[in-house]
Amino acid sequence: MNFFVPVGISNRHLHLSKEDLAKLFGENYSLTPIKDLTQKGQFAAKETVSLQTPKGELPNVRILGPTRPETQIEISMTDGFKLGIQAPIRESGQIQGSPGITMKGPLGSVVINQGVIIASRHIHIDEADAKKYNVTNGQIVAVSTDGPRGMIFKNVVIRVRHDFVTDFHIDTDEANAAGLKNGDQVKVITEEIHIP
Amino acid sequence: MNFFVPVGISNRHLHLSKEDLAKLFGENYSLTPIKDLTQKGQFAAKETVSLQTPKGELPNVRILGPTRPETQIEISMTDGFKLGIQAPIRESGQIQGSPGITMKGPLGSVVINQGVIIASRHIHIDEADAKKYNVTNGQIVAVSTDGPRGMIFKNVVIRVRHDFVTDFHIDTDEANAAGLKNGDQVKVITEEIHIP
Repeated sequence: MNFFVPVGISNRHLHLSKEDLAKLFGENYSLTPIKDLTQKGQFAAKETVSLQTPKGELPNVRILGPTRPETQIEISMTDGFKLGIQAPIRESGQIQGSPGITMKGPLGSVVINQGVIIASRHIHIDEADAKKYNVTNGQIVAVSTDGPRGMIFKNVVIRVRHDFVTDFHIDTDEANAAGLKNGDQVKVITEEIHIP
Repeated sequence: MNFFVPVGISNRHLHLSKEDLAKLFGENYSLTPIKDLTQKGQFAAKETVSLQTPKGELPNVRILGPTRPETQIEISMTDGFKLGIQAPIRESGQIQGSPGITMKGPLGSVVINQGVIIASRHIHIDEADAKKYNVTNGQIVAVSTDGPRGMIFKNVVIRVRHDFVTDFHIDTDEANAAGLKNGDQVKVITEEIHIP
Protein backbone atom coordinates (compact mmCIF):
# COMPACT_ATOMS: atom_id res chain seq x y z
CA MET A 1 0.00 0.00 0.00
CA ASN A 2 1.44 3.38 -1.00
CA PHE A 3 1.24 6.24 1.49
CA PHE A 4 2.58 9.74 2.09
CA VAL A 5 5.08 10.92 4.71
CA PRO A 6 6.61 14.34 5.42
CA VAL A 7 10.26 15.09 4.65
CA GLY A 8 12.73 15.79 7.47
CA ILE A 9 16.09 17.20 6.33
CA SER A 10 19.26 16.75 8.40
CA ASN A 11 21.98 19.33 8.08
CA ARG A 12 25.47 18.25 9.18
CA HIS A 13 25.51 17.59 12.93
CA LEU A 14 27.10 15.48 15.62
CA HIS A 15 26.19 13.41 18.65
CA LEU A 16 28.77 13.48 21.46
CA SER A 17 29.71 10.90 24.06
CA LYS A 18 29.78 12.16 27.67
CA GLU A 19 33.57 11.85 27.64
CA ASP A 20 34.05 13.92 24.48
CA LEU A 21 31.54 16.54 25.70
CA ALA A 22 33.61 16.90 28.89
CA LYS A 23 36.86 17.31 26.95
CA LEU A 24 35.37 19.91 24.60
CA PHE A 25 33.19 21.90 27.01
CA GLY A 26 34.25 20.94 30.58
CA GLU A 27 33.52 18.32 33.26
CA ASN A 28 29.81 17.77 33.95
CA TYR A 29 28.87 20.23 31.19
CA SER A 30 25.21 20.12 30.14
CA LEU A 31 24.13 20.86 26.58
CA THR A 32 21.67 23.76 26.22
CA PRO A 33 18.58 22.76 24.19
CA ILE A 34 17.45 25.46 21.77
CA LYS A 35 15.01 23.45 19.64
CA ASP A 36 13.17 20.16 19.98
CA LEU A 37 13.63 17.82 17.03
CA THR A 38 10.85 15.80 15.43
CA GLN A 39 12.03 12.61 17.15
CA LYS A 40 10.99 12.61 20.83
CA GLY A 41 13.63 13.59 23.40
CA GLN A 42 16.13 14.73 20.75
CA PHE A 43 17.12 18.38 20.61
CA ALA A 44 19.41 20.80 18.81
CA ALA A 45 21.87 22.31 21.28
CA LYS A 46 23.12 25.86 21.42
CA GLU A 47 26.65 24.45 21.36
CA THR A 48 28.64 23.85 18.18
CA VAL A 49 32.12 22.55 17.36
CA SER A 50 34.49 23.04 14.47
CA LEU A 51 35.40 19.96 12.41
CA GLN A 52 38.96 20.00 11.13
CA THR A 53 41.08 17.91 8.77
CA PRO A 54 44.43 18.71 7.11
CA LYS A 55 42.41 19.66 3.99
CA GLY A 56 39.60 21.79 5.35
CA GLU A 57 37.34 22.96 8.12
CA LEU A 58 33.62 23.14 8.82
CA PRO A 59 32.92 25.72 11.53
CA ASN A 60 29.85 25.88 13.78
CA VAL A 61 28.63 22.31 13.35
CA ARG A 62 25.55 21.80 15.51
CA ILE A 63 25.54 19.31 18.40
CA LEU A 64 22.36 17.29 18.85
CA GLY A 65 21.50 16.06 22.33
CA PRO A 66 21.26 14.13 24.50
CA THR A 67 24.71 12.51 24.65
CA ARG A 68 25.14 9.01 23.23
CA PRO A 69 27.41 6.08 24.10
CA GLU A 70 29.66 6.91 21.12
CA THR A 71 30.45 10.13 19.31
CA GLN A 72 29.00 10.14 15.78
CA ILE A 73 29.33 12.86 13.15
CA GLU A 74 26.89 13.01 10.24
CA ILE A 75 27.96 15.01 7.20
CA SER A 76 26.87 15.24 3.57
CA MET A 77 29.03 14.02 0.68
CA THR A 78 29.46 17.70 -0.28
CA ASP A 79 30.93 18.30 3.21
CA GLY A 80 33.17 15.25 2.73
CA PHE A 81 34.71 16.77 -0.42
CA LYS A 82 35.35 20.00 1.49
CA LEU A 83 37.06 18.10 4.32
CA GLY A 84 38.89 15.74 1.97
CA ILE A 85 37.48 12.61 3.63
CA GLN A 86 35.47 9.72 2.22
CA ALA A 87 32.77 8.99 4.76
CA PRO A 88 30.77 5.81 4.16
CA ILE A 89 26.98 5.78 3.72
CA ARG A 90 25.76 4.11 6.91
CA GLU A 91 22.81 3.70 9.21
CA SER A 92 23.11 5.64 12.47
CA GLY A 93 25.26 3.75 14.98
CA GLN A 94 27.25 1.86 12.31
CA ILE A 95 30.53 3.74 12.63
CA GLN A 96 32.98 0.81 12.53
CA GLY A 97 35.88 1.63 10.18
CA SER A 98 34.57 5.10 9.27
CA PRO A 99 37.07 8.01 9.11
CA GLY A 100 38.08 9.97 12.19
CA ILE A 101 38.37 13.74 12.52
CA THR A 102 39.43 16.55 14.86
CA MET A 103 36.67 18.33 16.80
CA LYS A 104 37.51 21.73 18.25
CA GLY A 105 35.51 23.20 21.14
CA PRO A 106 36.01 26.05 23.61
CA LEU A 107 38.18 23.96 25.97
CA GLY A 108 40.34 22.22 23.37
CA SER A 109 40.41 19.63 20.64
CA VAL A 110 39.44 15.97 20.54
CA VAL A 111 40.72 13.60 17.87
CA ILE A 112 38.46 10.64 17.16
CA ASN A 113 39.71 7.66 15.16
CA GLN A 114 36.34 6.82 13.65
CA GLY A 115 32.82 8.21 13.71
CA VAL A 116 32.23 10.27 10.55
CA ILE A 117 29.42 8.89 8.36
CA ILE A 118 26.94 9.97 5.71
CA ALA A 119 23.56 8.89 7.08
CA SER A 120 21.69 6.56 4.75
CA ARG A 121 18.20 7.78 4.01
CA HIS A 122 15.42 6.09 5.91
CA ILE A 123 11.82 6.39 6.98
CA HIS A 124 11.00 6.65 10.68
CA ILE A 125 7.59 5.22 11.36
CA ASP A 126 5.67 4.60 14.56
CA GLU A 127 4.13 1.20 15.27
CA ALA A 128 0.57 2.28 14.60
CA ASP A 129 1.47 3.72 11.15
CA ALA A 130 3.57 0.63 10.35
CA LYS A 131 0.56 -1.57 11.05
CA LYS A 132 -1.79 0.71 9.11
CA TYR A 133 0.49 0.81 6.05
CA ASN A 134 1.58 -2.83 6.34
CA VAL A 135 5.36 -2.21 6.47
CA THR A 136 7.92 -3.81 8.77
CA ASN A 137 11.22 -2.80 10.35
CA GLY A 138 14.10 -3.22 7.89
CA GLN A 139 11.88 -3.34 4.79
CA ILE A 140 13.29 -1.63 1.70
CA VAL A 141 10.92 0.73 -0.12
CA ALA A 142 11.17 3.54 -2.67
CA VAL A 143 10.13 7.17 -2.30
CA SER A 144 8.80 9.21 -5.20
CA THR A 145 8.80 13.01 -5.42
CA ASP A 146 7.41 15.41 -8.02
CA GLY A 147 8.39 18.80 -9.44
CA PRO A 148 11.14 19.85 -11.87
CA ARG A 149 13.70 17.90 -9.85
CA GLY A 150 11.32 15.00 -9.17
CA MET A 151 12.99 11.68 -8.49
CA ILE A 152 12.51 8.23 -7.11
CA PHE A 153 14.79 7.31 -4.21
CA LYS A 154 15.53 3.58 -4.27
CA ASN A 155 16.84 1.60 -1.27
CA VAL A 156 15.02 3.46 1.49
CA VAL A 157 15.00 1.54 4.78
CA ILE A 158 11.91 1.47 6.99
CA ARG A 159 12.64 1.86 10.71
CA VAL A 160 9.76 1.09 13.04
CA ARG A 161 9.70 2.03 16.73
CA HIS A 162 6.82 2.78 19.09
CA ASP A 163 8.16 6.28 19.86
CA PHE A 164 9.18 7.31 16.32
CA VAL A 165 7.46 10.20 14.62
CA THR A 166 6.76 9.27 11.00
CA ASP A 167 9.06 11.05 8.51
CA PHE A 168 11.40 10.55 5.52
CA HIS A 169 14.88 11.39 6.70
CA ILE A 170 17.38 12.71 4.11
CA ASP A 171 20.45 14.90 4.10
CA THR A 172 20.94 18.30 2.46
CA ASP A 173 22.45 16.86 -0.75
CA GLU A 174 19.41 14.64 -1.25
CA ALA A 175 16.98 17.44 -0.37
CA ASN A 176 18.65 19.92 -2.71
CA ALA A 177 18.98 17.41 -5.55
CA ALA A 178 15.24 16.74 -5.34
CA GLY A 179 14.24 20.33 -4.53
CA LEU A 180 12.58 19.23 -1.26
CA LYS A 181 11.85 21.31 1.84
CA ASN A 182 11.11 20.24 5.40
CA GLY A 183 7.53 19.06 5.67
CA ASP A 184 7.00 18.36 1.96
CA GLN A 185 4.86 15.25 1.47
CA VAL A 186 6.44 12.41 -0.51
CA LYS A 187 4.98 9.13 -1.72
CA VAL A 188 6.26 5.86 -0.27
CA ILE A 189 6.11 2.97 -2.75
CA THR A 190 6.12 -0.45 -1.17
CA GLU A 191 5.73 -2.53 -4.32
CA GLU A 192 8.53 -3.17 -6.78
CA ILE A 193 8.88 -0.55 -9.51
CA HIS A 194 9.02 -2.07 -12.97
CA ILE A 195 11.59 -0.30 -15.12
CA PRO A 196 10.75 -0.93 -18.77
CA MET B 1 14.97 1.81 -26.30
CA ASN B 2 17.01 2.05 -23.08
CA PHE B 3 20.70 2.88 -23.32
CA PHE B 4 23.64 3.90 -21.16
CA VAL B 5 25.46 7.26 -21.03
CA PRO B 6 28.36 8.50 -18.89
CA VAL B 7 27.84 11.04 -16.11
CA GLY B 8 29.36 14.55 -16.37
CA ILE B 9 29.24 16.58 -13.14
CA SER B 10 29.27 20.40 -13.15
CA ASN B 11 30.69 22.18 -10.17
CA ARG B 12 29.62 25.82 -9.71
CA HIS B 13 30.97 27.95 -12.57
CA LEU B 14 30.25 30.97 -14.69
CA HIS B 15 30.25 32.08 -18.31
CA LEU B 16 31.18 35.74 -18.86
CA SER B 17 30.15 38.22 -21.51
CA LYS B 18 33.04 40.06 -23.22
CA GLU B 19 31.96 43.25 -21.47
CA ASP B 20 32.00 41.73 -17.97
CA LEU B 21 35.32 39.98 -18.68
CA ALA B 22 36.82 43.37 -19.58
CA LYS B 23 35.48 44.99 -16.39
CA LEU B 24 36.78 42.19 -14.16
CA PHE B 25 40.13 41.44 -15.86
CA GLY B 26 40.90 44.35 -18.21
CA GLU B 27 40.26 45.49 -21.79
CA ASN B 28 40.91 42.80 -24.44
CA TYR B 29 41.78 40.25 -21.75
CA SER B 30 41.91 36.64 -22.97
CA LEU B 31 40.94 33.73 -20.70
CA THR B 32 43.70 31.15 -20.18
CA PRO B 33 42.46 27.60 -20.91
CA ILE B 34 43.73 25.03 -18.41
CA LYS B 35 41.48 22.08 -19.29
CA ASP B 36 39.29 21.12 -22.23
CA LEU B 37 35.73 20.20 -21.27
CA THR B 38 33.81 17.26 -22.70
CA GLN B 39 31.77 19.53 -24.97
CA LYS B 40 33.86 20.66 -27.94
CA GLY B 41 35.44 24.12 -27.81
CA GLN B 42 34.52 24.64 -24.15
CA PHE B 43 37.29 24.98 -21.60
CA ALA B 44 37.92 25.64 -17.91
CA ALA B 45 39.94 28.83 -17.52
CA LYS B 46 42.71 29.54 -15.05
CA GLU B 47 40.76 32.63 -13.99
CA THR B 48 38.22 32.66 -11.16
CA VAL B 49 36.01 35.26 -9.52
CA SER B 50 34.44 35.62 -6.11
CA LEU B 51 30.63 35.63 -5.91
CA GLN B 52 29.27 37.92 -3.22
CA THR B 53 25.89 38.67 -1.67
CA PRO B 54 25.00 40.48 1.57
CA LYS B 55 24.64 37.01 3.17
CA GLY B 56 27.70 35.14 1.97
CA GLU B 57 30.56 34.61 -0.43
CA LEU B 58 31.83 31.86 -2.70
CA PRO B 59 35.52 32.45 -3.49
CA ASN B 60 37.43 31.05 -6.48
CA VAL B 61 34.49 30.23 -8.73
CA ARG B 62 35.81 28.89 -12.02
CA ILE B 63 35.19 30.71 -15.30
CA LEU B 64 34.40 28.54 -18.33
CA GLY B 65 35.32 29.82 -21.76
CA PRO B 66 34.86 31.01 -24.40
CA THR B 67 32.87 34.17 -23.60
CA ARG B 68 29.12 34.19 -24.31
CA PRO B 69 26.63 36.89 -25.30
CA GLU B 70 25.34 37.06 -21.71
CA THR B 71 26.96 36.38 -18.35
CA GLN B 72 25.47 33.27 -16.70
CA ILE B 73 26.34 31.82 -13.32
CA GLU B 74 25.48 28.20 -12.51
CA ILE B 75 25.39 27.23 -8.85
CA SER B 76 23.97 24.34 -6.83
CA MET B 77 21.03 24.73 -4.45
CA THR B 78 23.53 24.13 -1.61
CA ASP B 79 25.50 27.16 -2.88
CA GLY B 80 22.24 29.12 -3.05
CA PHE B 81 21.59 28.57 0.65
CA LYS B 82 25.13 29.73 1.45
CA LEU B 83 24.61 32.90 -0.62
CA GLY B 84 21.08 33.46 0.63
CA ILE B 85 19.59 33.54 -2.87
CA GLN B 86 16.89 31.45 -4.51
CA ALA B 87 18.12 30.64 -7.99
CA PRO B 88 15.58 29.02 -10.31
CA ILE B 89 16.13 25.62 -11.96
CA ARG B 90 16.59 26.51 -15.62
CA GLU B 91 18.05 25.35 -18.90
CA SER B 92 21.26 27.10 -19.89
CA GLY B 93 20.51 30.48 -21.49
CA GLN B 94 17.15 30.93 -19.71
CA ILE B 95 18.20 33.61 -17.24
CA GLN B 96 15.21 35.94 -17.50
CA GLY B 97 14.10 37.01 -14.00
CA SER B 98 16.80 35.03 -12.19
CA PRO B 99 18.62 36.68 -9.26
CA GLY B 100 21.62 38.93 -9.76
CA ILE B 101 24.87 38.91 -7.81
CA THR B 102 28.18 40.73 -7.34
CA MET B 103 31.23 39.25 -9.10
CA LYS B 104 34.64 40.33 -7.83
CA GLY B 105 37.75 40.03 -9.99
CA PRO B 106 41.28 41.45 -9.88
CA LEU B 107 40.29 44.78 -11.49
CA GLY B 108 37.07 45.39 -9.60
CA SER B 109 33.48 44.29 -9.08
CA VAL B 110 30.59 43.86 -11.47
CA VAL B 111 26.99 43.77 -10.29
CA ILE B 112 24.62 41.84 -12.55
CA ASN B 113 20.86 42.18 -12.18
CA GLN B 114 20.10 38.65 -13.32
CA GLY B 115 22.01 35.56 -14.41
CA VAL B 116 22.25 33.14 -11.47
CA ILE B 117 20.56 29.80 -12.18
CA ILE B 118 20.64 26.18 -11.07
CA ALA B 119 21.14 24.21 -14.30
CA SER B 120 18.39 21.69 -14.93
CA ARG B 121 19.74 18.21 -15.56
CA HIS B 122 19.88 17.10 -19.15
CA ILE B 123 21.43 14.65 -21.55
CA HIS B 124 23.70 15.92 -24.32
CA ILE B 125 23.55 13.61 -27.28
CA ASP B 126 25.05 13.79 -30.74
CA GLU B 127 22.89 13.30 -33.82
CA ALA B 128 24.20 9.82 -34.60
CA ASP B 129 23.46 8.58 -31.07
CA ALA B 130 20.04 10.26 -31.10
CA LYS B 131 19.17 8.38 -34.29
CA LYS B 132 20.58 5.11 -32.95
CA TYR B 133 18.62 5.37 -29.68
CA ASN B 134 15.52 6.87 -31.27
CA VAL B 135 15.32 10.01 -29.12
CA THR B 136 14.62 13.58 -30.20
CA ASN B 137 15.58 17.05 -29.05
CA GLY B 138 13.37 18.19 -26.14
CA GLN B 139 12.16 14.68 -25.27
CA ILE B 140 11.75 14.00 -21.54
CA VAL B 141 13.28 10.76 -20.27
CA ALA B 142 14.28 9.26 -16.92
CA VAL B 143 17.72 8.15 -15.74
CA SER B 144 18.23 5.23 -13.37
CA THR B 145 21.29 4.68 -11.18
CA ASP B 146 22.27 1.84 -8.85
CA GLY B 147 24.17 1.49 -5.58
CA PRO B 148 23.24 2.35 -1.97
CA ARG B 149 22.08 5.81 -3.09
CA GLY B 150 20.53 4.53 -6.30
CA MET B 151 17.76 6.68 -7.72
CA ILE B 152 15.66 7.45 -10.73
CA PHE B 153 15.89 11.02 -12.00
CA LYS B 154 12.60 12.05 -13.60
CA ASN B 155 12.20 14.98 -16.00
CA VAL B 156 15.53 14.71 -17.78
CA VAL B 157 15.59 16.70 -21.04
CA ILE B 158 17.30 15.32 -24.15
CA ARG B 159 19.37 17.90 -26.07
CA VAL B 160 20.51 16.84 -29.53
CA ARG B 161 23.18 18.65 -31.54
CA HIS B 162 25.61 17.42 -34.17
CA ASP B 163 28.65 18.52 -32.14
CA PHE B 164 27.49 17.35 -28.70
CA VAL B 165 29.40 14.65 -26.86
CA THR B 166 26.93 12.25 -25.27
CA ASP B 167 26.69 12.61 -21.49
CA PHE B 168 24.25 13.02 -18.56
CA HIS B 169 24.83 16.46 -17.13
CA ILE B 170 24.10 17.00 -13.41
CA ASP B 171 25.30 19.29 -10.65
CA THR B 172 27.20 18.42 -7.47
CA ASP B 173 24.04 18.12 -5.31
CA GLU B 174 22.57 15.58 -7.72
CA ALA B 175 25.86 13.69 -8.06
CA ASN B 176 26.39 13.54 -4.29
CA ALA B 177 22.79 12.60 -3.55
CA ALA B 178 23.10 9.66 -5.96
CA GLY B 179 26.73 8.82 -5.11
CA LEU B 180 27.81 9.34 -8.73
CA LYS B 181 31.28 10.14 -10.07
CA ASN B 182 32.34 11.56 -13.43
CA GLY B 183 32.23 8.85 -16.07
CA ASP B 184 29.88 6.50 -14.20
CA GLN B 185 27.49 4.81 -16.63
CA VAL B 186 23.78 5.40 -16.02
CA LYS B 187 20.71 3.94 -17.71
CA VAL B 188 18.46 6.17 -19.78
CA ILE B 189 14.80 5.07 -19.73
CA THR B 190 12.75 6.32 -22.63
CA GLU B 191 9.49 4.56 -21.82
CA GLU B 192 7.12 5.64 -19.09
CA ILE B 193 7.84 4.17 -15.66
CA HIS B 194 4.79 2.64 -14.08
CA ILE B 195 4.64 3.39 -10.37
CA PRO B 196 2.43 0.80 -8.67
